[in-house]
Amino acid sequence: MHTEQVAELAQQLRVDSIRMAAAAGSGHPTSSMSAADLMAVLFARHLRYDFERPEHPGNDRFVLSKGHASPLLYAAYKAAGALTDDELRTFRTLGSRLEGHPTPRRLPWVEVATGSLGQGLPVGVGMALAGKRLERIGYRVWVLCGDSELAEGSLWEAAEHAGHENLDNLTALVDVNRLGQRGPTRHGHDLDAYARRFAAFGWHTIEVADGHDIDELDRAYQEARSTAGQPTVILARTLKGKGVAAAEDREGLHGKPVKNPEAAIEELGGVRDLHVQVQVPPAARVLHAVRSGHLELPRYEVGDSVATRTAFGQALTALGTARGDVVALDGEVGDSTRAEMFAKEHPERYFECYIAEQQLVAAATGLSVRGFNPFATSFAAFLTRAHDFIRMASIGGVSMNLVGSHAGVAIGQDGPSQMGLEDLALFRAVHGSTVLYPCDAQQTAHLVAEMAQQTGIRYLRTSRGDTPVIYGPDETFPVGGSKVLRSSDEDAVTVVAAGVTVHEALAAADELATAGIRVRVIDLYSVKPVDRRTLREAAERTGCLLTVEDHREEGGLGDAVLDAFTDGSPPPRLVRLAVRTMPGSATPAEQLHAAGIDAESIAAGVRLLVEHAVVQ
Amino acid sequence: MHTEQVAELAQQLRVDSIRMAAAAGSGHPTSSMSAADLMAVLFARHLRYDFERPEHPGNDRFVLSKGHASPLLYAAYKAAGALTDDELRTFRTLGSRLEGHPTPRRLPWVEVATGSLGQGLPVGVGMALAGKRLERIGYRVWVLCGDSELAEGSLWEAAEHAGHENLDNLTALVDVNRLGQRGPTRHGHDLDAYARRFAAFGWHTIEVADGHDIDELDRAYQEARSTAGQPTVILARTLKGKGVAAAEDREGLHGKPVKNPEAAIEELGGVRDLHVQVQVPPAARVLHAVRSGHLELPRYEVGDSVATRTAFGQALTALGTARGDVVALDGEVGDSTRAEMFAKEHPERYFECYIAEQQLVAAATGLSVRGFNPFATSFAAFLTRAHDFIRMASIGGVSMNLVGSHAGVAIGQDGPSQMGLEDLALFRAVHGSTVLYPCDAQQTAHLVAEMAQQTGIRYLRTSRGDTPVIYGPDETFPVGGSKVLRSSDEDAVTVVAAGVTVHEALAAADELATAGIRVRVIDLYSVKPVDRRTLREAAERTGCLLTVEDHREEGGLGDAVLDAFTDGSPPPRLVRLAVRTMPGSATPAEQLHAAGIDAESIAAGVRLLVEHAVVQ
Repeated sequence: MHTEQVAELAQQLRVDSIRMAAAAGSGHPTSSMSAADLMAVLFARHLRYDFERPEHPGNDRFVLSKGHASPLLYAAYKAAGALTDDELRTFRTLGSRLEGHPTPRRLPWVEVATGSLGQGLPVGVGMALAGKRLERIGYRVWVLCGDSELAEGSLWEAAEHAGHENLDNLTALVDVNRLGQRGPTRHGHDLDAYARRFAAFGWHTIEVADGHDIDELDRAYQEARSTAGQPTVILARTLKGKGVAAAEDREGLHGKPVKNPEAAIEELGGVRDLHVQVQVPPAARVLHAVRSGHLELPRYEVGDSVATRTAFGQALTALGTARGDVVALDGEVGDSTRAEMFAKEHPERYFECYIAEQQLVAAATGLSVRGFNPFATSFAAFLTRAHDFIRMASIGGVSMNLVGSHAGVAIGQDGPSQMGLEDLALFRAVHGSTVLYPCDAQQTAHLVAEMAQQTGIRYLRTSRGDTPVIYGPDETFPVGGSKVLRSSDEDAVTVVAAGVTVHEALAAADELATAGIRVRVIDLYSVKPVDRRTLREAAERTGCLLTVEDHREEGGLGDAVLDAFTDGSPPPRLVRLAVRTMPGSATPAEQLHAAGIDAESIAAGVRLLVEHAVVQ
Repeated sequence: MHTEQVAELAQQLRVDSIRMAAAAGSGHPTSSMSAADLMAVLFARHLRYDFERPEHPGNDRFVLSKGHASPLLYAAYKAAGALTDDELRTFRTLGSRLEGHPTPRRLPWVEVATGSLGQGLPVGVGMALAGKRLERIGYRVWVLCGDSELAEGSLWEAAEHAGHENLDNLTALVDVNRLGQRGPTRHGHDLDAYARRFAAFGWHTIEVADGHDIDELDRAYQEARSTAGQPTVILARTLKGKGVAAAEDREGLHGKPVKNPEAAIEELGGVRDLHVQVQVPPAARVLHAVRSGHLELPRYEVGDSVATRTAFGQALTALGTARGDVVALDGEVGDSTRAEMFAKEHPERYFECYIAEQQLVAAATGLSVRGFNPFATSFAAFLTRAHDFIRMASIGGVSMNLVGSHAGVAIGQDGPSQMGLEDLALFRAVHGSTVLYPCDAQQTAHLVAEMAQQTGIRYLRTSRGDTPVIYGPDETFPVGGSKVLRSSDEDAVTVVAAGVTVHEALAAADELATAGIRVRVIDLYSVKPVDRRTLREAAERTGCLLTVEDHREEGGLGDAVLDAFTDGSPPPRLVRLAVRTMPGSATPAEQLHAAGIDAESIAAGVRLLVEHAVVQ
């Protein structure tokens, strides 16, 4: 395409953005208009993408980090022949593929759900890592960012990660239109301010003084493509609402359709129907053909003492040997999470993300998008740092494994800052998630294998201290199952536990049995989904459930148990033991006791229930 | 103190760190030893602090961002005469004030809970803002950071915030000991790498080539104190485990007591009992004396249509007029959250934090620590970004208000990335939190006044769209209360709703009444704590509860209702309506319908319960 044609294409993208928002009565046309030239030059001259084969391994990846500029993206898809003009008019309506912010669930060319700012570049880093270190295909990753989102720390985690990994297959395009949602950004049109920051993190920087100059943009793209050894950022000075005088560079118009759209379209030269022929990538071979050998899980002797985090590390290493698509990432605590075991055996598939949990999960998301099966690990407490990334991953339909170690007060002396006490609540509320919490090494190993085969976000909660192995190596632990560890015809109460509290529950049951009180004990290792059948049967037999968990009482095991009884049938009587205080430092045993979730507390709770029938 | 004495003091801090960890059998002495000289010079020559009056307004603030170096902090407190040597030996034991990571709950000189890395500097920025913009007292904020935590994006949000606000009363001390937990950091001893980054964000940078040279450190501190117009970072090249050959600069010793502590102490010159006289600050007057005028809340006419976010903005503005300690912070969406109303009326107490939700909550934490009553606002969905900061604030006993707008699918066209659907789960699981979710403007205004008087983390969930005002201006809405909006002696079912679903529940009740089915409707505006009495009475009368919420089914209103029935008494039959699908774009009404939480869905649910008595 000649320069004039590319400029015309950019005008078309503006016009179509205005038309879409006008039809919908909402949307972000002005944020689309500022980046129209960046997008036109990319599609016309630099992107390599086969729209008929979105699964083509050689396709470049494009991520719209400023997801609210979705009209621009859809307009570009139309220009590339992937969408019809009719479909553009369905923008933001019920059932349309063209959502307010793009999601992969609906459109095959969208790989990453965006709309929460500061996430597109971090995920793009993960994709670029996959391309460079694992797939070794020559695709480039292009990420279009807004300037406002450069205030997010996650952007600088991504910048650090990409700079350190020398990701020269990654280009960030920043639409510096100087206006955020409610007004000017911190740095306005000061391109130098952003360039200094990116350069400090090891990026090659290119400033484009006029982000609406096709030739200047084209030279910048060429320079980015020819830069070796470091990622490149193109900082383009643009005007929000560019091309329509009533909107151009004006405050107060964010997220609003352009007024008088017909006049605006007229001002932009009217409706066009240009087609852009996006260059198709060369044939590419997937080099990371998935080995799928026999999985030899570690086996443990009943009675041995092994921490579940250690069993996790051993099982993950075995899984990595069996499956070539399994990769691991850790937030600089691999010696604690035991991810370092995988690193030693499979260094080429291990990604050290340092203490940057948002980037940890974002990189895992990018690797998942590229077909890998990532396990990302940190302390359970610190995965809260990545909550918004986990949320967005679930919106994007991402499948990945997150593993949080050092669950609960049972970690002991380190104190509350290191204790995962809210992680079950976080992960249960994630749409379509699987939440697993093993109590022994054998179970952990099996659950690692199970979780790798689920879809969506799967979470495994591991413990710091050693626990006795109680299951034999041939037991099975399906997702959605549970284990009844004690039962008799005289059970007066059912104790539901998971993880460390399983062992406390067993001790309590044994002690109570000597006093003639029989309790059923259920190991609810699958916290989501829960084993409704077993819980309901226990409720029918014993009439009463006592849940005990090393977690806050809100959103954890106690609430999960309720999932079995919210269909309108009469629920059993319920008592919950959970961590209701703010712990300090103490030994693990002291912590469990102080929180009222140890064997003694369980036994006392059962006695109250049995002796008083109803505790008021 | 002479240089030699300061050097001796540093050795004492090392020795005491080793002794504490040895006694406890755990802890982080090597991370303490690298920063001992930084700490000794600070305490001996630059810190102004009255240990007998931690409430002195003129005291400098010291924040240990690398919270695991707590032995160093406690050793310094001992040297300053605030702790006894006996108490040092209680380190990390049950009941001790000397926890593994410092918390303000226990020690009067600790103002910020740390231990999750990358949080001390962000909170320090909030304290420095308070000092510079509000209190106008000449105190300095000193933050001791590790080099590992510079990988956290939150550090760069803080750097950006401090640089932009020209916080020359803030000094970051970075203990560049080159070793993280599991091995070397990305940049090792490359001080330039860090200096480039801080300089790019507008900081004055000082590199100290030998972070164990007392005089060099002293000059750096002097330079920091005399630097005007920008914050300063002192980057000190140090050795982890400094002074003990077996530990110095060695990997694999993070978080472990030093082996052979007696020999190590001998190597460091033995146990000392030096006292450091920390300089006391000059008398200071608190200039922000809290006005406590009459609160004139906005009033609304019953039947008017007003968004709860708008009522929030109006009530907050009124609260700010009545109370001089109320401050507001927003993440660059003040036009949406309506925090901009406060900004217009009280610009001197408004803090624009741009799109950096971690820094938003951290700054609010810092302002709270300094005695202000902050309201921090963003979309409910984006507050997930700050989850770990909220968690740590609760550990620190911080009182602050967080307000999340754009709750639920009811926002409509923007789609799932903008919908707060997990926020109730997040905030309910926060220890000691208060969670409020109003359904109309009048209620919102009252709850804003109520929440400002609570302790701990208080969360208010507001809605985007207009809702009818259903309460008169003289109604009261105590925390922990609820409103029974429909009731009769023939109620067959109780519908429990909050926020937008209250209006759907009322519509359903009215429609069902025409069919002869009476339902009780409860507005459970206080999601935590819940109104147990009213819920139990309703359960007794109607036998059955149907909860309906614009939130995921896990951790929200449905689970909250259960809190009233987990004491062992028989719970009522329960059915939960919640958002179980992944929404796309659609109108608000279409969204509520698609999610099965609109009036029609509620009526259908009630009919099933009534007609089938038990739904299986």
